[in-house]
Amino acid sequence: MKSLSEILQRVQTRSPLVHCISNQVASNDCANIVLACGASPIMAEDPEEVAEVTALSKAVSLSLGTPNPRKAEALLRAGKQANALGIPVVFDPVGVGVSAFRQRIAKNFLDAVHPAILRCNCSELRALCLEEENARGVDADTRQEQDETENIRLAKAAAKKLNCVVAMTGEADILTDGEMTYLGHNGTPLMRKVTGTGCMLSVLTGAFVGANPDRPLEAALGAVCAMGLCGELAEQRMQQNDGTGSFRVYLMDAVSNLTPETLEEGADYEHYR
Amino acid sequence: MKSLSEILQRVQTRSPLVHCISNQVASNDCANIVLACGASPIMAEDPEEVAEVTALSKAVSLSLGTPNPRKAEALLRAGKQANALGIPVVFDPVGVGVSAFRQRIAKNFLDAVHPAILRCNCSELRALCLEEENARGVDADTRQEQDETENIRLAKAAAKKLNCVVAMTGEADILTDGEMTYLGHNGTPLMRKVTGTGCMLSVLTGAFVGANPDRPLEAALGAVCAMGLCGELAEQRMQQNDGTGSFRVYLMDAVSNLTPETLEEGADYEHYR
Amino acid sequence: MKSLSEILQRVQTRSPLVHCISNQVASNDCANIVLACGASPIMAEDPEEVAEVTALSKAVSLSLGTPNPRKAEALLRAGKQANALGIPVVFDPVGVGVSAFRQRIAKNFLDAVHPAILRCNCSELRALCLEEENARGVDADTRQEQDETENIRLAKAAAKKLNCVVAMTGEADILTDGEMTYLGHNGTPLMRKVTGTGCMLSVLTGAFVGANPDRPLEAALGAVCAMGLCGELAEQRMQQNDGTGSFRVYLMDAVSNLTPETLEEGADYEHYR
Repeated sequence: MKSLSEILQRVQTRSPLVHCISNQVASNDCANIVLACGASPIMAEDPEEVAEVTALSKAVSLSLGTPNPRKAEALLRAGKQANALGIPVVFDPVGVGVSAFRQRIAKNFLDAVHPAILRCNCSELRALCLEEENARGVDADTRQEQDETENIRLAKAAAKKLNCVVAMTGEADILTDGEMTYLGHNGTPLMRKVTGTGCMLSVLTGAFVGANPDRPLEAALGAVCAMGLCGELAEQRMQQNDGTGSFRVYLMDAVSNLTPETLEEGADYEHYR
Repeated sequence: MKSLSEILQRVQTRSPLVHCISNQVASNDCANIVLACGASPIMAEDPEEVAEVTALSKAVSLSLGTPNPRKAEALLRAGKQANALGIPVVFDPVGVGVSAFRQRIAKNFLDAVHPAILRCNCSELRALCLEEENARGVDADTRQEQDETENIRLAKAAAKKLNCVVAMTGEADILTDGEMTYLGHNGTPLMRKVTGTGCMLSVLTGAFVGANPDRPLEAALGAVCAMGLCGELAEQRMQQNDGTGSFRVYLMDAVSNLTPETLEEGADYEHYR
Repeated sequence: MKSLSEILQRVQTRSPLVHCISNQVASNDCANIVLACGASPIMAEDPEEVAEVTALSKAVSLSLGTPNPRKAEALLRAGKQANALGIPVVFDPVGVGVSAFRQRIAKNFLDAVHPAILRCNCSELRALCLEEENARGVDADTRQEQDETENIRLAKAAAKKLNCVVAMTGEADILTDGEMTYLGHNGTPLMRKVTGTGCMLSVLTGAFVGANPDRPLEAALGAVCAMGLCGELAEQRMQQNDGTGSFRVYLMDAVSNLTPETLEEGADYEHYR
């Protein structure tokens, strides 16, 4: 296994261009976190241009957030183009459980596109795989998270079925390619109080896999640990009167200051057997 | 009357899911302020999915900002669905005076949907009710604000006509259901120097009424006082070299740290007779 | 020549309304920077309403970022309306080199609309004028920047051809109307680590030319120097653990605190012969 420090080192050295189809709510934070980690973002989401933009990129990160029919078509075209050119695809099925529309888009997408990494939370994976429709909003459902063993089983099954890496965040983060599985323990509950941290993680994952296309599992592990660790570092800076506004700023600061050594030392994960 | 501390207490305890159709400019701040006050946002604005998303929610907050035809249709569908299910609707006619397009959308919306709360500034209420077309941009027109008595008369008339609560911000904030009227005096002029504070207040109002659906007037009063008070607290933190960027961060911090007790003590309003 | 302090003084005194068609990623920062400099933003980007909104404004600032067909039509209508009414147009061909779609929109736009100021970086000017298609992403290409003399020649040629001011940022900023040319030397590389600083400069330029419609070259010079100087001031505030998140906040702070005197003293530019 490559060490996580090497994974991040490559992001900073290679500075991959990451084509992000993010969403209205998080697109500014997404572009900024890609810059912060040392990569370069390009945002384009109209069907007329996504294939060309994907072709310029080292990775694409595609989010289902705030969907509409044109965006659905753009996701499809960017994903197919990336597959055709061997560019890794990160797919984030944001809130897939909240509407039949999102479920239809996600199903069409996954029927046509092979993601390298599926980046999701527990509710989303369930909605996607179990065709449950009871996911509450776009946030993780804490009740469902309690059964960690069941979640790991689910993530592994999805990874095998889709032949990809599943990077599922939650109480413990679960990273698996269906064979090898890691549990990540970085992070802080405060991250749930800032919108778009999941989306930010998905484009960060795009940057990590864009620089490490041969190692999607370790790239995903590196991104998940980096994000969680930066959340911890941000929380440690909080002072009197600071709240979620300052935390969001400190989180971006931490990503922009993260060194390969700090990531290596601070990453808290284990090999799951 | 419920005390404002009880109103906020309920927001934090019940953590209502608020379906926000915000706008491009303010959607990130809007999602974050809903999280900051203890509620949970969900952003969805395509006609294909809004009815389903509304059905999951405890309140909807609908903004006219940066309109387009699909969004107009989405506002209508979300509003009708909310009415059908008894979910309170907050409507913010952002910049309704600036174009015939916005006026048409607002008129169609109000012909088909009954809002629980109309959240606006003085120019917007005039454009909506008096069919004046001289509103300048999306900001309040200071000249018009000077005649407070006239503004109160206008707000009460609108509340009676629409059978809803009107929450109009300005030099003094005016809150009325047509019978009972409050004047709010929290806030700072600095809030006008940050974009989207009106939009943020509208989704905050959604969170407050989502947790207090039986008390729309007090929910609106609570949200308006909370927002203004947090503006004051944010301004008090300003230090040398801080400007509108820091103020925006401190404002979010203040909302995320606001306790029912602080709101009760800091709220500055009066019953108007 | 008007001094830059007079240029900024007018922005703060006249507080022009600036119609911004920005983009999803940067629209919040764009609205906030227009407010920060003392002007007033209005965001509207649907073809149904842009002509009316432009007619209310003192300047329009039009960005090619995250384009789609409706936005392309909106750019065209806003631009034509502005030309018809004598309102200055700032055009920012964001990432024009990345797709044939953007190139087509930009060409159609420039065939129909006369910009007062073309605000771009080196890659964008090349893609626009040389019909090169090798621009990398939306960021400036450092290699191309090295040949300053060639860049100046290119900017002057474009200014003459389009009969407008070209405000091209890069290693040195180049401002020219084809006859008179200035080189600006404010700024810090940190600005490239925050998304949308180019977009923010374009709407700031809109505010400056909206208040100084008779002096587009000096308005552009003032905006470019102001932005760069504020970047320097923001960088000077950076403390331990601060990163790009804090820098972004400090940048906005600096714009909101900028006085005509500070700009006059801090602006670093030269007349190029």
